[in-house]
Amino acid sequence: MTDEPDERIVPDVRETAADIASMEVRGAATIADAAADALASQAAASTAETPAAFEAELKAAARRLYETRPTAVSLPNALRFVLWDMEGESVAALRESVVESAEGFQADLAAAQDDLGRIGANRLRDGDVVMTHCHSTDALACVKAALDQGKELSAVVKETRPRKQGHITAEQLREWGVPVTLVVDNAARRYLERVDHVLVGADSIAADGSVVNKIGTSGLAVNARDRGVPIVVAAQTIKLHPGTLTGHTVEIENRDETEVLADADRDRITDGHPGDPDFAVENPAFDVTPPRYVDAIVTERGQFPPESVVTLMRELFGTDVGEPWD
Amino acid sequence: MTDEPDERIVPDVRETAADIASMEVRGAATIADAAADALASQAAASTAETPAAFEAELKAAARRLYETRPTAVSLPNALRFVLWDMEGESVAALRESVVESAEGFQADLAAAQDDLGRIGANRLRDGDVVMTHCHSTDALACVKAALDQGKELSAVVKETRPRKQGHITAEQLREWGVPVTLVVDNAARRYLERVDHVLVGADSIAADGSVVNKIGTSGLAVNARDRGVPIVVAAQTIKLHPGTLTGHTVEIENRDETEVLADADRDRITDGHPGDPDFAVENPAFDVTPPRYVDAIVTERGQFPPESVVTLMRELFGTDVGEPWD
Amino acid sequence: MTDEPDERIVPDVRETAADIASMEVRGAATIADAAADALASQAAASTAETPAAFEAELKAAARRLYETRPTAVSLPNALRFVLWDMEGESVAALRESVVESAEGFQADLAAAQDDLGRIGANRLRDGDVVMTHCHSTDALACVKAALDQGKELSAVVKETRPRKQGHITAEQLREWGVPVTLVVDNAARRYLERVDHVLVGADSIAADGSVVNKIGTSGLAVNARDRGVPIVVAAQTIKLHPGTLTGHTVEIENRDETEVLADADRDRITDGHPGDPDFAVENPAFDVTPPRYVDAIVTERGQFPPESVVTLMRELFGTDVGEPWD
Amino acid sequence: MTDEPDERIVPDVRETAADIASMEVRGAATIADAAADALASQAAASTAETPAAFEAELKAAARRLYETRPTAVSLPNALRFVLWDMEGESVAALRESVVESAEGFQADLAAAQDDLGRIGANRLRDGDVVMTHCHSTDALACVKAALDQGKELSAVVKETRPRKQGHITAEQLREWGVPVTLVVDNAARRYLERVDHVLVGADSIAADGSVVNKIGTSGLAVNARDRGVPIVVAAQTIKLHPGTLTGHTVEIENRDETEVLADADRDRITDGHPGDPDFAVENPAFDVTPPRYVDAIVTERGQFPPESVVTLMRELFGTDVGEPWD
Amino acid sequence: MTDEPDERIVPDVRETAADIASMEVRGAATIADAAADALASQAAASTAETPAAFEAELKAAARRLYETRPTAVSLPNALRFVLWDMEGESVAALRESVVESAEGFQADLAAAQDDLGRIGANRLRDGDVVMTHCHSTDALACVKAALDQGKELSAVVKETRPRKQGHITAEQLREWGVPVTLVVDNAARRYLERVDHVLVGADSIAADGSVVNKIGTSGLAVNARDRGVPIVVAAQTIKLHPGTLTGHTVEIENRDETEVLADADRDRITDGHPGDPDFAVENPAFDVTPPRYVDAIVTERGQFPPESVVTLMRELFGTDVGEPWD
Amino acid sequence: MTDEPDERIVPDVRETAADIASMEVRGAATIADAAADALASQAAASTAETPAAFEAELKAAARRLYETRPTAVSLPNALRFVLWDMEGESVAALRESVVESAEGFQADLAAAQDDLGRIGANRLRDGDVVMTHCHSTDALACVKAALDQGKELSAVVKETRPRKQGHITAEQLREWGVPVTLVVDNAARRYLERVDHVLVGADSIAADGSVVNKIGTSGLAVNARDRGVPIVVAAQTIKLHPGTLTGHTVEIENRDETEVLADADRDRITDGHPGDPDFAVENPAFDVTPPRYVDAIVTERGQFPPESVVTLMRELFGTDVGEPWD
Repeated sequence: MTDEPDERIVPDVRETAADIASMEVRGAATIADAAADALASQAAASTAETPAAFEAELKAAARRLYETRPTAVSLPNALRFVLWDMEGESVAALRESVVESAEGFQADLAAAQDDLGRIGANRLRDGDVVMTHCHSTDALACVKAALDQGKELSAVVKETRPRKQGHITAEQLREWGVPVTLVVDNAARRYLERVDHVLVGADSIAADGSVVNKIGTSGLAVNARDRGVPIVVAAQTIKLHPGTLTGHTVEIENRDETEVLADADRDRITDGHPGDPDFAVENPAFDVTPPRYVDAIVTERGQFPPESVVTLMRELFGTDVGEPWD
Repeated sequence: MTDEPDERIVPDVRETAADIASMEVRGAATIADAAADALASQAAASTAETPAAFEAELKAAARRLYETRPTAVSLPNALRFVLWDMEGESVAALRESVVESAEGFQADLAAAQDDLGRIGANRLRDGDVVMTHCHSTDALACVKAALDQGKELSAVVKETRPRKQGHITAEQLREWGVPVTLVVDNAARRYLERVDHVLVGADSIAADGSVVNKIGTSGLAVNARDRGVPIVVAAQTIKLHPGTLTGHTVEIENRDETEVLADADRDRITDGHPGDPDFAVENPAFDVTPPRYVDAIVTERGQFPPESVVTLMRELFGTDVGEPWD
Repeated sequence: MTDEPDERIVPDVRETAADIASMEVRGAATIADAAADALASQAAASTAETPAAFEAELKAAARRLYETRPTAVSLPNALRFVLWDMEGESVAALRESVVESAEGFQADLAAAQDDLGRIGANRLRDGDVVMTHCHSTDALACVKAALDQGKELSAVVKETRPRKQGHITAEQLREWGVPVTLVVDNAARRYLERVDHVLVGADSIAADGSVVNKIGTSGLAVNARDRGVPIVVAAQTIKLHPGTLTGHTVEIENRDETEVLADADRDRITDGHPGDPDFAVENPAFDVTPPRYVDAIVTERGQFPPESVVTLMRELFGTDVGEPWD
Repeated sequence: MTDEPDERIVPDVRETAADIASMEVRGAATIADAAADALASQAAASTAETPAAFEAELKAAARRLYETRPTAVSLPNALRFVLWDMEGESVAALRESVVESAEGFQADLAAAQDDLGRIGANRLRDGDVVMTHCHSTDALACVKAALDQGKELSAVVKETRPRKQGHITAEQLREWGVPVTLVVDNAARRYLERVDHVLVGADSIAADGSVVNKIGTSGLAVNARDRGVPIVVAAQTIKLHPGTLTGHTVEIENRDETEVLADADRDRITDGHPGDPDFAVENPAFDVTPPRYVDAIVTERGQFPPESVVTLMRELFGTDVGEPWD
Repeated sequence: MTDEPDERIVPDVRETAADIASMEVRGAATIADAAADALASQAAASTAETPAAFEAELKAAARRLYETRPTAVSLPNALRFVLWDMEGESVAALRESVVESAEGFQADLAAAQDDLGRIGANRLRDGDVVMTHCHSTDALACVKAALDQGKELSAVVKETRPRKQGHITAEQLREWGVPVTLVVDNAARRYLERVDHVLVGADSIAADGSVVNKIGTSGLAVNARDRGVPIVVAAQTIKLHPGTLTGHTVEIENRDETEVLADADRDRITDGHPGDPDFAVENPAFDVTPPRYVDAIVTERGQFPPESVVTLMRELFGTDVGEPWD
Repeated sequence: MTDEPDERIVPDVRETAADIASMEVRGAATIADAAADALASQAAASTAETPAAFEAELKAAARRLYETRPTAVSLPNALRFVLWDMEGESVAALRESVVESAEGFQADLAAAQDDLGRIGANRLRDGDVVMTHCHSTDALACVKAALDQGKELSAVVKETRPRKQGHITAEQLREWGVPVTLVVDNAARRYLERVDHVLVGADSIAADGSVVNKIGTSGLAVNARDRGVPIVVAAQTIKLHPGTLTGHTVEIENRDETEVLADADRDRITDGHPGDPDFAVENPAFDVTPPRYVDAIVTERGQFPPESVVTLMRELFGTDVGEPWD
C-alpha cells in the first residue's frame, strides 16, 4: 500500500465511478445515492492512520467520482454535501461523520420527492388547470399530492418535441384521473388564457437563479409572464448546481439530429444530397430561463423565489468558494 | 326570366360558387381571382335594363359567392374591391366599370407577390439570418428577391408542428442555395440570439392590427420582442380581413386531432380506452398576434406598421360600414 | 344692416350659443346636433350677396358657437364637419351645401350609437365577461347589441368613485338581464383574471391616440395590459378632439371636493380647522390613457387601433391645420 | 391528571385561545404577544416529569392556540419562534429556555415598530412626497421617524375604499403637521408623477416574496412600477407568513357587502328585488402583489428585496419543513 | 436637339445637381427647395412637343437630381411631391401644373418650421422641463413658440458626444432666456425624473414608424419610456423618407473617428502603434428608435403617433409603389 | 490616563484616521486594509484591564475611523467585519480575536480580486464580446482570468464621459491583446446587438440589491435588458454597503463642472456672462441601477442575483441592526 491517496481508493468507489461513467447508473437521484454510498464505503474501508490522510483519501475518492461525469448536477451535490459535513478530530470520528452524513443525505433523498410534492400541492387550488412541459416526476409529484389532498385538477399537456415526453405525462395524469388536453408546443400561448399555473421540472438550477430545463421552457415562461400566469419549477435540491456558485455555466447538450428529422426527410429536403454541408439540424436538449420569468422554485426544503436559491445552495453545500475535493 | 336578382345569377357565378364551396378552388389568391372573374362574367352577361337592376344583380352574385365560404378572407376582399368601384349612369357604363375593375384587380393580384417580395427584400441586409415559421410563399418571396438583389442570407427554420410545413420551407431555401438550420419549435427562443429578423406570412390581418397566422406565431413574436429581434409579416393585401373593420373576429379553425396524435398513441395514453371522455387533443390551426409584437407588415402596396393597416383597408375597400352586397 | 359678418349672425345661432354657454344644452351628442342646426339656420337665413360674404357669415357663426364652450369636444367637431363640406360657386349653392351637410351630420349622429354598438358587439363572444368603469352609453350599446345578437354576457362593474356611476351601469345591465358583480375600484385587478374584455367609453380622444376618460381608466388599462386582458374604448366620432391635431392637450377639469369628502369628514381630519391650508382634496374628473394600453377604439365608422385614429380625424374633419372658422 | 398532553394544557393557554377565537384579542402584535405569554405560562406551570413530556405539552399548547385562528399570520410566528428555541436536557432547562425565548420575543415585539420606523425613514429624503394606501401603523412609523430626523415630507393619501381608512391616515399625518392631499383611489395613477415613494403596510408576506395587503395595493404597485416610482412595504417580521414556506397560500377574506353598497342602493340596482340571484357584491379584503412590483420590504431587522424575505423567515423561524407543533 | 430625354435636361437642373453633389447646397430644407426650383425651371424651359415627351423630360430631370445624393431624405421628397401632382392634357397644362406644384411646395417649406413650432408648443405646459439631445431647429422651434405663447420652460441639455451639439442648443436656449442645466449623456437617466418631455428632432422618419436621429436618441427614448416620460420628435414632413415606403432601410453614416478620439489618445491606447489592427473607433452618426418608444411626431401638418406617419407619407407623396422618376 | 475610551485611542488609529480624511489613503481596498490594520494596532496596544473597557476602546477607535469618511463604503465594512468577530472572555482573548480577525480580513482582501476574476471568467465563453463602462479593475480581473483560461474575447469599450476612463480600459485590454472597439456613450445601444455581456464594476451595492456605479450604468443596464443582453456587476464584498441594511441611501457625489465643460465653452454659451445664474452644469459621479436590470453580481465569495446580496451582507457583517461601534 502506498501513501498516494488516489491509490487507496476502495473498489466500491471504483465500481460506482465506472457505472456512472458508463451510464449504467443514471438519473439525478440514483447517481446522487450511489455517490453518497461510495463515499461511505471509502470511509468505512479506509485504513488511513491520520485525520489528514483520511481526509485526503476521501477527497481523492470524491474527485474520482466527480470526474466521471462532471455535468451530472446531482453528482457534485452529493459529494459536496457529504464532504462538507466531514468533521472530527480522530480518524474514527471522521469516519463516523462521513458515514452518518452519507446516510443522512440518502435518507433525505428518499423522502425528497414526496416532501416536495406536498409543498408544491399547497400552491394549487381546487379546480385549477396546470400546463405541463416535458415529463418531470417532481412536477407530477405536486399534482399527485394535490389530488391526495382532495383537490380536482385538470391539465393542458404540451407534447414537447422532439421526444414527445408530454405523452408520458398525459398517460400518467390519465391514470390518476386528471382530465387532459394535449396540444402541440406551438399552441401553448393560445391555451395560457385558461391555465392557472405553468408547472415544470428542472434539469439543474444555477446560483444566479436561472433554470436549466427541457428545451422550450424559456419560451413558455416568457409567454406565461406576458399572460400573467405564474410559472412554478419543481426541483429537488439535488438539482441545484454547485458549480454555478463560482460562475460556471451549465453546458447544454446537443442531442442527435434524428430525434428531430428522419433520414428520409433529410434527404428530401437536401434533394438527395444527404451530406449537404449547408443543411444542419440542431437539437439542443435544454434551455435557460432567467429568474425574472419564474415565480417560485419548489424544493423538498420549501419554496423559494429563484433569486434566493443561491442562499439555499450555500446552506446545503457550504459557502466556501472552490471544489471541496481540491 | 324573372325580376328576382337571385334568379338572374349567371352560370359562371354558380359554378365558381360551387367550386369554392367544394374547395376545388382553394388558396387565397386563386379564390380571389375566381371571384373577380365570376363578377365580371355576371356583368358581361347581364340583361338588366336599368342601372338599379344591374346593381341588384351584381350584389346578388356577390352575396352568392360570399356565402359559400365566408371565412376565406380573400373572397370578400375580391368582391368588395370590384363592387366598390362600380360606377356609371347607364347599364353599359356600369358593366364596363365592373369588368375593368375585375380585370384591374386580377392584374394587381398577379403581380402582387413579386412586388411584395421586392419590398420585403429591401428590409434584409447582406449576411442577415432570418427565422421562419411554417411555409409562406409571401415570406419566401422576400427571401428570393433579396437573393436576386445579390444578398447572401441564411435561415433558421422552425419545423412547425403539427404539420411540419417547415420542411417545405427548408427544401425551398436549399433549392435557392440558402444555408438552413432546422430546429424544433421549442428551440426557437434559444436561436433568436443569432437571428436578425423573424419573417412570417399571415392567414389574415385584422383592422385592429392583429395578425392571424399559423399556430405558434404569437408565442414566437412575444419571444422575438423580448430578445429585441424585429418581426416582419409578409402578406398580400388580399389577406386584409374586411369583416374586421366592423369588429368581427376571425374564426380560428380546429383541425383534426390525428395531425397531432396518431391513433395508436392515443390508445396508449388512454390505456386502451380511446373514447376516454376526459382526454382531448386540441389542434387550433392559427393564433392571433397583437400588433404590439409586430414591427412591420409588408404588402405589395408597401410596408406598414400593423396599427396603420386599417387605413390601407379603408383605402382599398372603402370606408363604408357594412357589407357592400347587402 | 352692416357688412360686418358678426352682426349678421342670425337669432337661432345666438340662442343656441347662449344655451350651450348656460349648459341648458349639454351632452356631447346634443351639443353637436344643436350646433349643426344653428349653422343650417344661419345658411338658410343668410342674406349675403356674394359667396365670400356668405362664407364669412358662416365662419362668424361658427366662431360664435365655438367660443361659448371651447372644451366641449363635440362642438368644434360639428362645426368643422359642416364647414369643411361647404362648397359651391354661388350663394345658393353654398347655402344648399351647408344645409345638406348639416342634415347629413345630424342623420349620422342619430344613427351613430346603434352602429357603434353593432360593431363593438362583434368583438364580444358568447359567454364573455366584461369589466366596466363609470357609465358610458357607448360602451353599454356594445353590450346591448351583443345581447340582441343572442350572446350571453356577464359583467364585473367597478363602482367608480367618487360619483359611483357604476351603480347606474349595474342598474342598466340588470334591467337587460346581465348578471353583475359589483366591486370597489381597488378590487379591479383581482377580478381581471376572470374578465375577457375591459370595456369603457371616452370623454375625448386625441390625435396622438391617447384616450381621455373618467378618472381611473388609465390605472385600469395598465393593469389590464399587465394581465393580458384587451381594453376596448367605445366612442362615437364626435369624441375625437380636433384641437389635438394641432398639439393642443385636453384640459382636465377638477371637480368639487365634496364629491370626495363630506364636510364633516374634512373637519374631523383637520381637527376642527376646516380651513387647514395644508389639507387639500383634489378631484380630477378625467385621466389620460396612452395608446399603448388600448387595444381598439370602436366608433360608428368601424374599429381602429388608437394609433390610427388620427387618420379618421383627418378624414372626417379635413387635413388643414388651423381652425376652419379663422 | 392524565398523560395526554392535551389535557395538561394550563388555564392561561385555554383562556388566551378563547380570547383569540372570539377576537377579543386581535391585531397582529397583540395576538403574537398573547400567544408567547401563554406558552410561557404553560412552561412555567408545567408539571411534566420528563423532557419529552414537557415538549409534548408545549406542542399541544401551541397546537391549541394555533387552531383558534390559523389565518392570523402573527400567531404561528410567535409559536414557531418560541418553540424553535426550546432547548435543554432537563425539564428545568427546557422551561427556562421557553420562558426566556418568550420574553425575548415579547421584548423584540415591543421595540419592533420603532426600529422599523427608523430604518424606513432612512430611505426618505427631505422634501419627499409619499403616497399611502389604507392605514398602516408600520408605514406611518417610517414617516414619523423621518419627521423626527428633521425631514419635511408631504403626502398624497388614497381614501382606500371600501372602508376609507385613508381618512385615519390623513388625520394622523395632519396631526404630525404633514401636508396632505386626499384623492380617490381612481386618481392614484394621475398623482404618481409627483410622488417619490409609494409606502404601504402588509397584512402578511409570503415566502415567494409576494405581499398580501389591503385590496388595491397590487393595482397601485403595477402603476407605480410603470411610472418609475419605488414601492416600499413596511412590515414587522410578525407579518412573515411561515405557512408559505411550505407552499401554503394566504387565504383572502371576503368581507360583508354592506361595506361596499348600502342596502337601499342594492334595492335600487336590482329594481326592488333585493334577492336578485344574478347580482353579487364581492368585497375581498386583500390582494396579492408579486415581488417584481415591490422595491423593498422594511422590517425591524433591516430592509430586504422581497425575493430575500424567505431567507429572513428561515433565519427567524427555522429551516425545518413542517409545523413545529406537529 | 435630340429626342433623348436625358439630353434635354436644362442647365438649371444640371447646375443644381452639381451643387447638391458637391454639398454646396446642403441642409434638408435647402436641398428640397433647390430641387423643386430646378424641376420648375425644367418645366418652364421645356421645348417638348407632346405631353409624353414633357413627362419623360421631367422624369429624366428628377432622376438626374435624385442620383446626386440618394441618401438625402428631403431630395426624393421634393421630387415626388412635384411630380406626383403633374397633371394635364397638353404640354401647356402640364407645364403650369409642375410650376404651380413646385411653387406650392416651396411656399409650404418656407412656412413649415413656424407651423410645426406652434403645434409642438401646444403640447408644452407652463413650467415644464424639456430634455434635449443634439441640436434640432425643429425641436427648438417648439420651445420658441411656447415661449412666444407666454409659457415659462426650463431645459436639461445633453452635451451629445461626439460633436457636442448640445452646446449650440444650450447657447440658443440661454439667448431666449430659458434656464439650462447641461449634463453629460451618461447622466440623462438620472435627470429624467425631473423632466416632463424629451424633445428631439429627426434626420429622417421611416414608413414603419421608426425615427432615425442623432446617435444616442434610441437609448434615451428607451430610458424615457422606462421612467414614464413622453418622447416627442419634431420633424418637418421633408424628413419623411419615401424610400422606406418600399422597405428600404435608411443608411447610417459612419463619421470620422477623430470626432471621437484625438490621434494622441489613440497612440497612447495602442501603445504608440497607431496602426493597431485590433483597435477600432466606430462613430455612427445616427441610430434608429422603434415607434414603440416615441409618443408623438410633430410636423407642420399636425402631430401623429409614429405608427400613423406612413399614412401622411402616402397622402403627401402618393400611394404608388416605385419611384416616380422610373 | 483616563477611563474615557476616546482618549485611549492609539496613535496608529489617529494617523490612519487622518490619512483617510486627507485622502492620502484612498481606494476601496486600501482604505479597508488600513482600517483593519488600525484596529489591530489598537487591540495590540490596548492597556484596558477589563473586557468591557477593551470593547469600549475598540468601538471608540472604530467610531473615530468611521467618522473620517462615512461615505467610503469599504471603511464601515472593514470595521464591522473586525468588530463583529470580537469574542472572548478575557482581554487577552479579545485582543487575540481582534488581531486574528483583522489579519483574516486583510488576507481575504489581498486574494479577493483574483478570486473574483476567476469566478467572473467562468461566465464568459470563448469568443464572447463584452461591453465595458468606465474603468473597473474588478471587471477587468474577470476578463484577465478568462484570457488566462485560454478564452478569446473582444470588447466594445464606452469612452465614459466626463472623465473618459474608457481610455484606460481600452489601453489595458490592448495590452492583454484583446481587440477593442471604442465608441461614445451615445452609441452603446447600437452596439448591444453584437455584445454578449455588459460587464461593469460597482462603487457600492445596497441591501435592496441596487448597484451604485459610475454615472451612465443605469441607462446602459436598461438598454441591455431591453436588448436581451445580460448585465454582470463585478464587485468585491468590500463594496457591499452595510449602512443600506438599515435603509440608508448612498449619497451621490456631484463633481466639479469643469470635468464637463471648459470655462471657455461656458463663457460662450452664456454669452460672456460666466456667472449666468440660470446656467448650471451638473456632474453627478454615480447613478443607481435597480436590481431588476442586473443579472448577476460577481464577488470573491461567488456570484449572486442582486436580490440575494443582502443575505451575503448579513453573513459577512452580522444581522444586528445598528452600527457596531455605537
